[in-house]
Amino acid sequence: MVRPTTLISSVRLNRYLSLDILLASETFQHTGNFKFRGAWHMASNVPHHHLLTSSSGNFGQALAFACQELNKRCTVVMPNDSVIVKVEAVREFGGDVELVDTRKITRDARVAELARQYPDAYVASGFDDDLMIAGNSTLGRELAKLNGGIDALVAPISGGGLASGILKGLRSEGVDIPLIGAEPLLANHVTRSFRAGQIVRDKEESKTIADGARTTSLGERNWEILKTGLAESIEVPEAAIRDAVRLLFHLANLKAEPTGALAVAAILIQRERFQGRRVCCIISGGNVDAPLFSSLIV
Amino acid sequence: MVRPTTLISSVRLNRYLSLDILLASETFQHTGNFKFRGAWHMASNVPHHHLLTSSSGNFGQALAFACQELNKRCTVVMPNDSVIVKVEAVREFGGDVELVDTRKITRDARVAELARQYPDAYVASGFDDDLMIAGNSTLGRELAKLNGGIDALVAPISGGGLASGILKGLRSEGVDIPLIGAEPLLANHVTRSFRAGQIVRDKEESKTIADGARTTSLGERNWEILKTGLAESIEVPEAAIRDAVRLLFHLANLKAEPTGALAVAAILIQRERFQGRRVCCIISGGNVDAPLFSSLIV
Repeated sequence: MVRPTTLISSVRLNRYLSLDILLASETFQHTGNFKFRGAWHMASNVPHHHLLTSSSGNFGQALAFACQELNKRCTVVMPNDSVIVKVEAVREFGGDVELVDTRKITRDARVAELARQYPDAYVASGFDDDLMIAGNSTLGRELAKLNGGIDALVAPISGGGLASGILKGLRSEGVDIPLIGAEPLLANHVTRSFRAGQIVRDKEESKTIADGARTTSLGERNWEILKTGLAESIEVPEAAIRDAVRLLFHLANLKAEPTGALAVAAILIQRERFQGRRVCCIISGGNVDAPLFSSLIV
Repeated sequence: MVRPTTLISSVRLNRYLSLDILLASETFQHTGNFKFRGAWHMASNVPHHHLLTSSSGNFGQALAFACQELNKRCTVVMPNDSVIVKVEAVREFGGDVELVDTRKITRDARVAELARQYPDAYVASGFDDDLMIAGNSTLGRELAKLNGGIDALVAPISGGGLASGILKGLRSEGVDIPLIGAEPLLANHVTRSFRAGQIVRDKEESKTIADGARTTSLGERNWEILKTGLAESIEVPEAAIRDAVRLLFHLANLKAEPTGALAVAAILIQRERFQGRRVCCIISGGNVDAPLFSSLIV
């Protein structure tokens, strides 16, 4: 059911950056984002017939579609300032959307309320769940095939589900390519966690344009894998995220969402150190609404 | 050197259309358009060290890059109202651009002048050339692998280079999938040629938004292949082209240029007849500038 990632290289992008970059794009994954990998694995493997989660959009859409394909019920708690296309997409896939005003009640608190209301439901985390990590590891296994052809992998990081999944997949294939995380500077809890040697939690969600990276901390399960496995993390300013979306559009014909452009943005701000290294950037997803995208590409 | 086409299917697009569509996207081909296939084959196979052509952009860019890779010289005649990104891209690949005011002198006339000026140059047609057809046939050979899984192919058509190449490639593999051409209603010389049983030429270039389909007639070599090989042609109104670009952006995360969206646009206006058929739409390219693209996706 999961679609393999799409490998893209662009001469124009490489020349512009004077670098050798391969893009692994999850923008054509089902529901337009890598999240479907974990969602599908989770929904297929839990015995529950109702799954309940909180999501800024991509995981909700992925889980809704996975549940619909499996004839299961799906309830998704979303902030009431979510981009409309993401809310509509969850509903399109048969998901029940519960909008919450996050200034009044946190998403987690609303999920807890609903969990009491539906005691038979599986409460799904979009990142801190062994089934998610296992599902995301399919991408790591695919990327392991690039062994010998690339010197480093760069992937967006926030909750840590994607990065820990990639590491798990690489390890399962016995492959050891350094994995670098790219997180928004405005939501830099990963870098701070590595400095502290333990999970650091933000008090509130960041307003970074990379809306898929607004998670307030790494997941416990992800941290266990990442603390010894992630080579490092790079903090990416908002301007670089915008630049990366624009460059991917103009030079690689790729529609990436801001979170999806984090890896390329990290390369943009540290070009010197990637000189002469063959780097694979994971483009985690492509779901972005037209008004925002239009404002980024001009 | 040529990159294989990228196969994409989108559940959301299929559900929206109630159809079963596979997209074969050439937007990630070198220089962002299928034209590189023919350009590379041509530049590699002619003995000349200087190639000269007229192009609304995509062929020029493709030929410039092919020549640059082969250390050959390339001169491209372009209308002075070409979108800037296309002119810049030709220059970026080392091509010499000759801008012409097409109200004063036709592009062909200017090419003829330059051909006299450079008698050693090969005058390259972007579509009516056996080398182009042979180069484009690599796409047909790739699509032949879909035999059994699809019932029809739909491809943009204007000069006929892509369609005749696809047919040639399918035939070389002994595969007979019906190929349908999609042309702008504003530049419908293909449909008129089939009605007349001979090549019909437009007096002047159309102003269709599908700028890669402004060719004024089928090429002679292409017509020889198409007149017995093309299943039919569909005339596509401008509004449908715009709709197709927008739907590909929103539902398939694909950045297509208007010409690239012609096949999907043809399906859009004739949904009933494609019901229950598995159709592969060729997305011929993705090179479109940001202001136009922004105006199409909202």
